[in-house]
Amino acid sequence: MLDQQLLQALEQVVGEAGLVRDEQRLQSYLSDWRNAYRGKAALVVRPASTEQVAAVVRLCREAGVALVPQGGNTGLCGGSIPDDSGTQVVLSLTRMTQIRDVDAGNETITVEAGVLLQRLQEAAAEAGRLFPLSLGAEGSCTVGGNLATNAGGTAVLRYGNMRDLALGLEVVLPDGRIWNGLRGLRKDNTGYDLKHLFIGSEGTLGIITAAVLKLYPAIRSRTTAWVALPSSQAAVDLIGRMRALCGDRLTGFELMSRQSVEFVLRHVAGCGELFAEPHPWYVLIELSDTLPDSPLAEMLESGLGAAFEEGEALDAVVAGSEAQVAALWKLREGISEAQNHEGPSLKHDISVPVSRIPAFIAQADERLQQAFPGVRIVCYGHVGDGNLHYNISKPLGSEDAPFKAQAEAIMHLIYDVTAAFAGSISAEHGIGQAKREAASRYKDPLELELMRSLKQTLDPTGLMNPGKVL
Amino acid sequence: MLDQQLLQALEQVVGEAGLVRDEQRLQSYLSDWRNAYRGKAALVVRPASTEQVAAVVRLCREAGVALVPQGGNTGLCGGSIPDDSGTQVVLSLTRMTQIRDVDAGNETITVEAGVLLQRLQEAAAEAGRLFPLSLGAEGSCTVGGNLATNAGGTAVLRYGNMRDLALGLEVVLPDGRIWNGLRGLRKDNTGYDLKHLFIGSEGTLGIITAAVLKLYPAIRSRTTAWVALPSSQAAVDLIGRMRALCGDRLTGFELMSRQSVEFVLRHVAGCGELFAEPHPWYVLIELSDTLPDSPLAEMLESGLGAAFEEGEALDAVVAGSEAQVAALWKLREGISEAQNHEGPSLKHDISVPVSRIPAFIAQADERLQQAFPGVRIVCYGHVGDGNLHYNISKPLGSEDAPFKAQAEAIMHLIYDVTAAFAGSISAEHGIGQAKREAASRYKDPLELELMRSLKQTLDPTGLMNPGKVL
Repeated sequence: MLDQQLLQALEQVVGEAGLVRDEQRLQSYLSDWRNAYRGKAALVVRPASTEQVAAVVRLCREAGVALVPQGGNTGLCGGSIPDDSGTQVVLSLTRMTQIRDVDAGNETITVEAGVLLQRLQEAAAEAGRLFPLSLGAEGSCTVGGNLATNAGGTAVLRYGNMRDLALGLEVVLPDGRIWNGLRGLRKDNTGYDLKHLFIGSEGTLGIITAAVLKLYPAIRSRTTAWVALPSSQAAVDLIGRMRALCGDRLTGFELMSRQSVEFVLRHVAGCGELFAEPHPWYVLIELSDTLPDSPLAEMLESGLGAAFEEGEALDAVVAGSEAQVAALWKLREGISEAQNHEGPSLKHDISVPVSRIPAFIAQADERLQQAFPGVRIVCYGHVGDGNLHYNISKPLGSEDAPFKAQAEAIMHLIYDVTAAFAGSISAEHGIGQAKREAASRYKDPLELELMRSLKQTLDPTGLMNPGKVL
Repeated sequence: MLDQQLLQALEQVVGEAGLVRDEQRLQSYLSDWRNAYRGKAALVVRPASTEQVAAVVRLCREAGVALVPQGGNTGLCGGSIPDDSGTQVVLSLTRMTQIRDVDAGNETITVEAGVLLQRLQEAAAEAGRLFPLSLGAEGSCTVGGNLATNAGGTAVLRYGNMRDLALGLEVVLPDGRIWNGLRGLRKDNTGYDLKHLFIGSEGTLGIITAAVLKLYPAIRSRTTAWVALPSSQAAVDLIGRMRALCGDRLTGFELMSRQSVEFVLRHVAGCGELFAEPHPWYVLIELSDTLPDSPLAEMLESGLGAAFEEGEALDAVVAGSEAQVAALWKLREGISEAQNHEGPSLKHDISVPVSRIPAFIAQADERLQQAFPGVRIVCYGHVGDGNLHYNISKPLGSEDAPFKAQAEAIMHLIYDVTAAFAGSISAEHGIGQAKREAASRYKDPLELELMRSLKQTLDPTGLMNPGKVL
């Protein structure tokens, strides 16, 4: 499929080890880990250095061949999967795995795009520091992908998104030139902030090859609790209360509806009821501190005590061991998998202002039940980020097909309500190919126009991950 | 000077109260507060709403008239001062002073560009929250200016720059259209992050008219200390130690050389020596917490005790009252004013990686004393940000004129050393007109080219604050 001359030139750059052509070996690069998206590719190229990436980009540009940058392939929106044409080249960064520098005195680490998030966390720990980004795919996802998609997760409440953790980038531009923006500076006001343009652009403006990232002090105390609540409003009230009391010691605040927890209890081995009776909502609260003997349990007790008095909280369990901590997180993290056992599920990753979470849920629930009676709403998420995974399972005992046929209508209903609350239709998953149409429908046309003009400016030939984002 | 038709059209938009033409009243808009930069203007326009700003921008664009957006006029690089042509129109945002919304549940506040930083801090406090940005000019500077210049200050160590405090913006684009990006969302991954393009662009890409900003929990305990150190390396070691121990409770860590403190002792009334003998370096340490009775003094003692043992710290005073806290900060904040009493001073606002501060100081000091014997180095700054105000006063007893004639050579020497340590020639003050040439000399040409292409894309007629930044 690929021009022989180009193929030879690419092989000269990356060597035989840097090319994947074998049909069998190609497969894992053509589909995401959930197998939700599948494409074709002329070739997979795996450069081992920034200079090789630059050379590959230049060669492909000269030949007019589109590139699809790819990391751990764990994205949920198909951003790293090529299209069906078979003409695109996948540029995998997974051979760029060097940790170039750890500067403990500057509280920074410089890593290449192909480093696994988990490896980065470990390297930080080896330096007595914390790299805080944490998400389900951390054992498989790469730093480059985390940056390209501005990854979120459960620690955003305290530490921000991946965007907030980056001080500098190295990027191969669409014309093959290398921008060395690998500055480890906390303050630098010498012009437009270019790094923020590339972060979250999903490889459509250039290829991130390395980054300088912030490190944080290691955590030496932690307390985790599971709390039953009467309403989602109680969750918003409780996070306000805990935040005012604990400040940055509040590092986790995860919301789960009863329906979400029921699915986990039914399908995930080793998870059991925590209270004598069911409650409509639960939150998982995590406090942590750099102090080895921080009185976190006392702070939690003090906050929860007041919450019980106000009727914000109904019951609570505080983990007494690491095993119990793990069990609580398993209840939370099992939701996504558990839902798959209940038939096809429609997953949405929305955000609204934190204060509007209860009204959003009330309105979305009501309109959904009116329009699609019996659908089961699996609502959970990160309260402090206003980020809900507002997922839908088919009505109990119904067939898959009619439910699947309603997927788009259900999505539009949820996005309509999200828009009415000034929210986002993709809080942390990005756009990729999955939400391109929805973005063009729900985003401000002026904003889309500005995005298009930036794309045109930086990638005039349109060969960087075409068909994604815009 | 201005076309009568345009003048009438502008008056129709903003009313008589929104125009300043009187020579006397014009003066304060034509010069910054230090009177370091002075320009001329055809007119000052003071719109009172976003729609009025948009209409002014449209009218000026049609007439081909350049606009200079202006806030509190407290910038240090002349970014808000018009040129000498007398053809530019100053667009002052100081009538846009509405606090549009305080959403305590979302921990956000929405304010217009003309709101004073101090007023914003007060509004946050009234809501039981903290707005953390803090800098010398806070009583006069505006939120719009803080955003346009990505302001820094003394709280960046813990809370980041102004960029990190903004969730959403409202911007009047160079063509007069209004981009409403006033989203109060912690997570929104639906495309390129446009707000970061406008923040720090000093009005050259558009005019920021309002913003959604983050609020933080109120601070309820605070401990402040003044510590004598043997070296700047000790400051870097000590901040690492305190950060590992206290985490985010470490909210201030300001470095001062003995020379800096001596100037304050000599020129600022009410400041006295704190220790029996002089020491080469001092740091002001501030710990703070959301807990009302946080054991900060014990933590400080524990950290300093270890530092004394390691020889990192030589002596310390812990403030025992609010008056003593104020006295310590006065010693720190008096430096800039004190230096003015020692004749002309050359001010530089550089940053390097934190770990390289000692080597930077050693090399810059040595090269300066070799090249310009006798100059007095007034070095102070924010250790956690790697940000030094590395200022120079003339040799004792020398004339002003020969020293002033060396200003550019001294600046280049300091910037050369900064560049050698991968630093920034403008850490927090921006570029404005003051550092435009230096930026073109010290920034990566590729980065300048990218900046120029973004400017061309967003402001093709070049009428937004021409002659600034680029």
